[in-house]
Amino acid sequence: MSSDSRPAESGQSVPAPVGSGPSTSAPAGAGPSDSVEAGRVRPTIGRGEKVRTAVLAATLAELAEMRYAALTVDAVARRAGVHKTTVYRRWKDKDGLIVDALAGQIAAEIPIPDTGTVEGDLRLLARGLAAWLRGPSGAAVLAVMLSEAAQAPGIAEARARIFHDRLRRAEPVITRAVERGELPAGIDPGAVIRAVAAPLYFCVLITAEPVDDEAADRSVTAALAAARNGGLG
Amino acid sequence: MSSDSRPAESGQSVPAPVGSGPSTSAPAGAGPSDSVEAGRVRPTIGRGEKVRTAVLAATLAELAEMRYAALTVDAVARRAGVHKTTVYRRWKDKDGLIVDALAGQIAAEIPIPDTGTVEGDLRLLARGLAAWLRGPSGAAVLAVMLSEAAQAPGIAEARARIFHDRLRRAEPVITRAVERGELPAGIDPGAVIRAVAAPLYFCVLITAEPVDDEAADRSVTAALAAARNGGLG
Repeated sequence: MSSDSRPAESGQSVPAPVGSGPSTSAPAGAGPSDSVEAGRVRPTIGRGEKVRTAVLAATLAELAEMRYAALTVDAVARRAGVHKTTVYRRWKDKDGLIVDALAGQIAAEIPIPDTGTVEGDLRLLARGLAAWLRGPSGAAVLAVMLSEAAQAPGIAEARARIFHDRLRRAEPVITRAVERGELPAGIDPGAVIRAVAAPLYFCVLITAEPVDDEAADRSVTAALAAARNGGLG
Repeated sequence: MSSDSRPAESGQSVPAPVGSGPSTSAPAGAGPSDSVEAGRVRPTIGRGEKVRTAVLAATLAELAEMRYAALTVDAVARRAGVHKTTVYRRWKDKDGLIVDALAGQIAAEIPIPDTGTVEGDLRLLARGLAAWLRGPSGAAVLAVMLSEAAQAPGIAEARARIFHDRLRRAEPVITRAVERGELPAGIDPGAVIRAVAAPLYFCVLITAEPVDDEAADRSVTAALAAARNGGLG
């Protein structure tokens, strides 16, 4: 709960030296050099965040243009206007980069609501997810995630990490509901969030039924009915 | 409900002349020729079913070896040991063939139970689906269905048809439960079946969590709790 929005960075909140062009020859891979750099207090913190944003945006742009298998860290670095070593200093590999880029995009497009009621929160959450799933971002993410799942070993794990992170972030909606007495105390917050999300993915991926506000509301009604009747933990 | 297990054959229950080697020169495409052939009462009915079985098995074998895009009716016919025109007499195109082959495989591997209680039926159904999803058949079907979805326009529709057919076949489990007074009368049978299936697909496709008997039982518990609490229609 206390982690920030950078699941793949493994605590490297220190900005890398930025603007590193071809002259930068720092070794690839995150390591002890980060703590050395942490000693320098310089106005590069804002630039570090800019590099991070540029690299993640470049990753999404590359993903949108080519399939997962064809994406390279070289191409991402070129598009972001940074040196490859700058990317490797922050992300271990291509998979870590993609997980971070997609997780960030999902977090930005589907905020976690706090309306004061569990039904209000879950409806906003479900409608946000439905809109994302039927929109271009969701379609692109799912296409990357699923189309290459069989070929790329890293992607199945990456997908699971992104969605677990996402589900975990939504759980406060349920813990607040329990605190307000809207849902029974023994409930499994993750199970409720999954029960809201699963039917919407099912519509998109399997039955090809519309994923609209109505579908979102139906999944909330069903999940709350189950939750209140002891069906979810 | 009254249809048989051949959703793609559009009523062509008349067997085609079988054993048609290279000498058979009947025109491709199903049509009036079928009713002409229906006039001949010959012992080819069993052989017609054998051809059908051989062609569908050849389709699954071809699908397992190559991606959807690379599958051809020619290769299926060659593998089944029949002439291409024999295939085209029964199936309009490659998509119809694949839908029929996959739907048949799913029906064979996940039977619809009738144990006498809705909980017993749904548990068997959910455990059967879970076993299929984590087994080689389910993995192969999902890989075909999802990996080519973006490229092949026919496949998204085919997928929806297979799963709608499948959901519809399972609905008697719920209508029988309503008749026995186990579930409220106003319930939507399709919604209950979807509520059982969706979390299992979600585990396999998104969260990469185990799809075991426990996951199956959890989805049944949640679906029944929702159904009995007015959450599913």
